[in-house]
Amino acid sequence: MRFELEPIGVISSELTSLADAPMQGSEGAPDAWIDVDASFADALRGIEVGDEIIVITWFHRADRGTLQTHPRSDPRNPLTGVFATRSPDRPNPLGLHPVTVRAIDGNRLRVGPIEAIDGTPVVDIKPVL
Amino acid sequence: MRFELEPIGVISSELTSLADAPMQGSEGAPDAWIDVDASFADALRGIEVGDEIIVITWFHRADRGTLQTHPRSDPRNPLTGVFATRSPDRPNPLGLHPVTVRAIDGNRLRVGPIEAIDGTPVVDIKPVL
Repeated sequence: MRFELEPIGVISSELTSLADAPMQGSEGAPDAWIDVDASFADALRGIEVGDEIIVITWFHRADRGTLQTHPRSDPRNPLTGVFATRSPDRPNPLGLHPVTVRAIDGNRLRVGPIEAIDGTPVVDIKPVL
Repeated sequence: MRFELEPIGVISSELTSLADAPMQGSEGAPDAWIDVDASFADALRGIEVGDEIIVITWFHRADRGTLQTHPRSDPRNPLTGVFATRSPDRPNPLGLHPVTVRAIDGNRLRVGPIEAIDGTPVVDIKPVL
């Protein structure tokens, strides 16, 4: 049993390398644009500037075979299952990014702070409950 | 560009029909088991009873063509883009469920409250930050 995800948009960010990206959005990440594909523009209706949303990304560079890791890539931290961490390396490399909507320009949402690098696919957007 | 999700487990719940399921976990949902596939058991290391986690499910019965909906299935609510709602009907029907770990039994996690119905595939588990 497998399921197929289709990107609904892509991150356009000044962050272009994983080495430069903070590990969490709250750790000094910049704002970025989400370029939503025109075919999904109708699904944005109702999102407003100032909204708190959760952006779900696909970490396209992740190692899906990793089951345990040293948190924050620090070998002094004990080996931990990836389901107990936010490691991008995991069986299904989904990223959750709670962000604020800063601006809306047609099919584009300005959001932040967000640590996802330029070119990261976006697969879903949800309101924070 | 498509991405393939592989279930890492499945929900085992007393909720067996969508008609009986509350719309959110906080609305009277029961606890349920997540049966994690043995091949992913190592990824659970470090999860403890009492932890707050986010379970990501795949709404296998969703309509992926829905882009707008009346929130809470109430026609009096204005038509809204699914990215501004928690509707399970959406292009990539991922569900986010913040829950508490109630018990751990080998590869099984007792979690709740959770509104996902019996048989719902689980694709990821993350800690709440």
